[in-house]
Amino acid sequence: MLIIKVGGGENINKAGIAEDIKKLKEPVVFVHGGRKQTDKVADALGRPTKRIQSPSGVTSVLTDKEALKTLTMVYAGLLNKEWVQVFQKQQVNAVGLSGADGRIWQGERKMNLIAAENGKEKLVKDTYTGKVNKINAGLINLLLENNYLPVITQPAITEDGELINTDNDRNLGVMAGALGAKKLVVLFEAPGMLESPEDESTVIRFIKKSELKNMMQFAKGMMKKKIIGAIEAFAAGAEEICWGDSRIENPVTSALEGKGTTIS
Amino acid sequence: MLIIKVGGGENINKAGIAEDIKKLKEPVVFVHGGRKQTDKVADALGRPTKRIQSPSGVTSVLTDKEALKTLTMVYAGLLNKEWVQVFQKQQVNAVGLSGADGRIWQGERKMNLIAAENGKEKLVKDTYTGKVNKINAGLINLLLENNYLPVITQPAITEDGELINTDNDRNLGVMAGALGAKKLVVLFEAPGMLESPEDESTVIRFIKKSELKNMMQFAKGMMKKKIIGAIEAFAAGAEEICWGDSRIENPVTSALEGKGTTIS
Repeated sequence: MLIIKVGGGENINKAGIAEDIKKLKEPVVFVHGGRKQTDKVADALGRPTKRIQSPSGVTSVLTDKEALKTLTMVYAGLLNKEWVQVFQKQQVNAVGLSGADGRIWQGERKMNLIAAENGKEKLVKDTYTGKVNKINAGLINLLLENNYLPVITQPAITEDGELINTDNDRNLGVMAGALGAKKLVVLFEAPGMLESPEDESTVIRFIKKSELKNMMQFAKGMMKKKIIGAIEAFAAGAEEICWGDSRIENPVTSALEGKGTTIS
Repeated sequence: MLIIKVGGGENINKAGIAEDIKKLKEPVVFVHGGRKQTDKVADALGRPTKRIQSPSGVTSVLTDKEALKTLTMVYAGLLNKEWVQVFQKQQVNAVGLSGADGRIWQGERKMNLIAAENGKEKLVKDTYTGKVNKINAGLINLLLENNYLPVITQPAITEDGELINTDNDRNLGVMAGALGAKKLVVLFEAPGMLESPEDESTVIRFIKKSELKNMMQFAKGMMKKKIIGAIEAFAAGAEEICWGDSRIENPVTSALEGKGTTIS
């Protein structure tokens, strides 16, 4: 089984990804993001996305009640069905689901966050953020056994039935563990992990999984979360992770052929 | 099997509907609308819903490309996951799906419509509207057999993989035929079919299915489509349809007990 995750950028070669997945022999679980489009819709609705910084310097989206609604509209509605449409056009029988559907992604809500603001720590209350710790592998396997492609995205759900925003990159590890997936493909809008974040020619072709932590020094922005997600995925039993470019001609097969960054 | 459909109003007793469904012994397929909320989001996005009138006087939503996006966000995203959440809070393992997922609702697109405007006929081009003619009963039954509640809504999909807006009321008949469902419950924001549309005390308790056509004289607005949908459902093999009030304490059981309008 292969878990393939694509970010939420605007230059993704969606048709190319669907074509690649159609050709694969093994069962695929597909996960997608949607942050850029969500920010656009949030702007259009006059309630722009707020961001906070943790005391350790990691920037996150602040998901209050209104932001959760916008996120649910865009991730689980607009973009999830756009992906389903892209796959269906290639005769891949995709079934789009949020993490809440059938409790595919169940997690714990973190209602209060600590944010750093002008050098001071500030308590941010009532956020709909959390961390997935339980996967409904039964539903995913049921779909796979019947030749459907599960296309999964935010939001997740708590045990009590609250919708929460969780981190796709970190959900990959929990999924790899629950599904016994050994191989992950993670696509984003860069050709791989870059030694100089501004220079796309500096792709690091291979990283030993034991050296992932040291890579944090090269990581900027969202790459930090990808490294954390990768470390967690290996801890959960994954054996190889291929990071690759979602914008190129054959995004999935190129990543699998080691044209991005391979970690094992 | 019972097919239960709820409209897209704002005063629906969602928790009451979920409680009722939890108590039912037979498998349920759930269909929901979302028009009111979609209109609100369309307004907030500065692209209000357009409506057209057919030459025969039936008012419909005009689904152009932008309207299709808004509809997909609100029906398949915001409201579908809100329903899933309501069911999950009652420990009913709901799985929310659009008609595009797994091609549950496949249909034909009607690209051009004839609208009546100021007494003249006008061609409206490039609409994403259509009519469902094929159900993926396999996927619905797969979910039911594994104790999931399918929660289905717009959009549907064409054979070529285009998303289209179809009519929930008319999809019920196609579903009843494909699934062999004999009984349908249709809930809306009125206590049933009213003899005087303005007077909620004039509920018609019982209608013979052979007399449904004559009821068109009492029907206003959306009720016309519900009658057409009911006629089609009976033609497809349904034996009893219960129309009832979605706003009251036990919306589903009340309708099943004949407290709304029963047609058979």
